[in-house]
Amino acid sequence: MNSNGKVYLVGAGPGDPELLTVRASKLLRRADVVLHDDLVPAEILSLAGPDATIVNVGKRCGAKKITQREINEQMIAAARSGKTVVRLKSGDPGIFGRLAEEIDALKEAQVAYEIVPGITAGIGAAAALGVSLTDRRKAARVVIVSGHKAHTGEPDEKIDWKMLARKDATLIIYMPGHEFEALQKELLDAGLPSEMPAAIISRATTREQQQEFTTIGNLGTAGRLPAPSLLLIGWALEGAGEKWRRESFSTAVEYAELMLASE
Amino acid sequence: MNSNGKVYLVGAGPGDPELLTVRASKLLRRADVVLHDDLVPAEILSLAGPDATIVNVGKRCGAKKITQREINEQMIAAARSGKTVVRLKSGDPGIFGRLAEEIDALKEAQVAYEIVPGITAGIGAAAALGVSLTDRRKAARVVIVSGHKAHTGEPDEKIDWKMLARKDATLIIYMPGHEFEALQKELLDAGLPSEMPAAIISRATTREQQQEFTTIGNLGTAGRLPAPSLLLIGWALEGAGEKWRRESFSTAVEYAELMLASE
Repeated sequence: MNSNGKVYLVGAGPGDPELLTVRASKLLRRADVVLHDDLVPAEILSLAGPDATIVNVGKRCGAKKITQREINEQMIAAARSGKTVVRLKSGDPGIFGRLAEEIDALKEAQVAYEIVPGITAGIGAAAALGVSLTDRRKAARVVIVSGHKAHTGEPDEKIDWKMLARKDATLIIYMPGHEFEALQKELLDAGLPSEMPAAIISRATTREQQQEFTTIGNLGTAGRLPAPSLLLIGWALEGAGEKWRRESFSTAVEYAELMLASE
Repeated sequence: MNSNGKVYLVGAGPGDPELLTVRASKLLRRADVVLHDDLVPAEILSLAGPDATIVNVGKRCGAKKITQREINEQMIAAARSGKTVVRLKSGDPGIFGRLAEEIDALKEAQVAYEIVPGITAGIGAAAALGVSLTDRRKAARVVIVSGHKAHTGEPDEKIDWKMLARKDATLIIYMPGHEFEALQKELLDAGLPSEMPAAIISRATTREQQQEFTTIGNLGTAGRLPAPSLLLIGWALEGAGEKWRRESFSTAVEYAELMLASE
């Protein structure tokens, strides 16, 4: 085990810098090197110290088409040269974050590491929509799935919605894509009622957040919101749309006031 | 809408005070009244300002047998008298936290509120065990369920493990109880292999954390760890036990060093 450097695999949360953990925030300030994914906002990266080296290792907007192997090599090289490395992933690193592969590489290289959990996008999104994911009257479980297997690099596999779709579950679909018509059909075929509420949320918890409240029956004609987006489905969302339309303006103002007060 | 007071429904995270969000930490410092559940550690409550009124409204160790209705009334009364109220729940408020009922009461009373998400216990536990909940090689989804319906006040209902148990899912069971023999049988009957890894974790992310790595086949004879505990099951946990035994000591020491350095 190398005794000097260390890699912290850190969740950056859903987007709002205030939703970083205290620990993630401290680690960012101490980091010598920050290797971050595309989706981590600039406001969060700006928390790193002035001498930190900040590298976008995202696969979309990064300087070049970087492979997972190259990311692993960068983490390992930096840690071996005695650096404190923060590997910053949006949301929680353990949920659709390729964390397992990075852990395996660090273990193999005998580099010390630690995981710092983050608020995963789906949980941040529910809070931002004013929704409780479980409700003892109507939602007894939460199922987190990925609509696209883009993160696996493999061709999309058909998801067995019949197994997943239950009236007493809240379904959170990461990377739902835009094929809502096909999804609507699958969910109805799986036996879910067309009046079951659904919400599409884009860039949850950030200033650019957009949301659309709908139902499974109307999902096929829902708007296309900018990526990254999430789809929430289930009775736990009942009434959330009406509440949102009534209160969103006052909430936004109060939120801004709180931000000012807390500075 | 009352223009003065407001209720913040805040997640306290899994236990480690460093795993509070920055926002939760700021709100605690500003709160006039903190109404908290039993499981929120004293270290987190100590972040509240010296003039804050701190009330344990937990149903177990609170001063009296408090009902949900009384909790709602306390929140509403404090907000109506112009106070900033932090309703602090362990983990994330939207996961097995009775959040929906408190939202309904606040809506009904026309009291302003906002949800601040937290790291839910299962995600904190996975990070503390060094485990990624998804793994594109072996775990495509995460299912969060409650083993006991104690939180519903209703008699325990049988969980349809056949629907839940899948080889490519990571199952997180909150409040798993101690009836592991019965659970083992259910999981095997549902078709899961006896060699599938499992872990029981008690008081995850706190100094009192204890964990036991096992398999479905050995779950029936697993030890009883102190509540609150969690059960994680799935191939995503493969190898986590060996890694833990090899590294736990050095990790604990490094963790303590980091805590000192960050103060």
